[in-house]
Amino acid sequence: MLLCDVGNTSYHFLNEESDYKKEADSFVPSLVEEQVFYICVNPHVKPVLKKLENWIDLSLHVDRINYYESMGIDRIVACEAIENGIIIDAGSALTVDIVKDGVFEGGFIYAGVHAMEQTYKNISLALEYSFNFELDLDKMPKNSQDAISYGYLKTLYCEVTSHKMDIFLTGGDAKKFAKIFPHARVDERLIFKGMKKIMKKADLC
Amino acid sequence: MLLCDVGNTSYHFLNEESDYKKEADSFVPSLVEEQVFYICVNPHVKPVLKKLENWIDLSLHVDRINYYESMGIDRIVACEAIENGIIIDAGSALTVDIVKDGVFEGGFIYAGVHAMEQTYKNISLALEYSFNFELDLDKMPKNSQDAISYGYLKTLYCEVTSHKMDIFLTGGDAKKFAKIFPHARVDERLIFKGMKKIMKKADLC
Repeated sequence: MLLCDVGNTSYHFLNEESDYKKEADSFVPSLVEEQVFYICVNPHVKPVLKKLENWIDLSLHVDRINYYESMGIDRIVACEAIENGIIIDAGSALTVDIVKDGVFEGGFIYAGVHAMEQTYKNISLALEYSFNFELDLDKMPKNSQDAISYGYLKTLYCEVTSHKMDIFLTGGDAKKFAKIFPHARVDERLIFKGMKKIMKKADLC
Repeated sequence: MLLCDVGNTSYHFLNEESDYKKEADSFVPSLVEEQVFYICVNPHVKPVLKKLENWIDLSLHVDRINYYESMGIDRIVACEAIENGIIIDAGSALTVDIVKDGVFEGGFIYAGVHAMEQTYKNISLALEYSFNFELDLDKMPKNSQDAISYGYLKTLYCEVTSHKMDIFLTGGDAKKFAKIFPHARVDERLIFKGMKKIMKKADLC
């Protein structure tokens, strides 16, 4: 039995206690012979997986009543994984969701690292920098790289910490953001915890 | 005598007490016969203006000692306009700069409205919305449009208000942001005030 979280850039698998990724563009899911419990936000992959009998769509087993209609299934499943806290999922988008006593309280969508670096570059080639995750957040910047890094990171930091909740960091860029949120728990497998909870509730394991 | 602030998308003129804009792509500056005191951040226009005798580059008269080398001249001149406060200049980039007792204390660069709407759209077509500037900033969102609006606006709001300073709003999107910062002073001519101060110091008027 495998678990799989399909995003826009990759398939993220969990097999017992090891996890690995496959590229969304080139991976052929019909070659997997085992049973796979999955969620998928990738519009190109969704119809392919629907046709495969051994791929079980967990989104059909989620109680969506506490969530909003257009909310991504990956955000929902991550929220199911925790009882209390604020989840930062740093992928191509960066989503921030709040859960209190097991109930989703709302959330917001920010741009992921790559998307935001592109944004600054598109505004002006003079702003083409990688973000400085070692930035001193207590000091207003006096150089261009820190000025864009602060614009992207300090604004996020300020909002997230204002909620005074435990922070859970997940997603492909979780480790980068751990430098900005040093007290956060990094858990790159948070989504699989949510998936397992849903499977238990639905008697699928 | 005219004042002119040349940005990436337009020439912004001040003639006595009236101001007007011309498109950067199509306007022909050599057709202006009056003396023009200008600043320019547009790399395509800069070399054209340098050749015109009646266009006087005010950037040559600015004391840059308090600023950093790669800082845009438009940000510098806006800072020169005030003694104390935090300036939000909402253009294609959105810059935030702090001035204390007439001295620049640092600043950061965020994305402008259009650039950020493009960013969300590029991440996913499901995130193609205009921002909701009427958003309730005290409530975590439960729909996609508010989720991206909050991601862009509340993060900025949180950081800017944390400084507890008077807020000055300028730039093409100043009026939109006045909904988010209701106590801010909107001054679309702030840059011209800075230019006039520089001209007085340099005995140019």
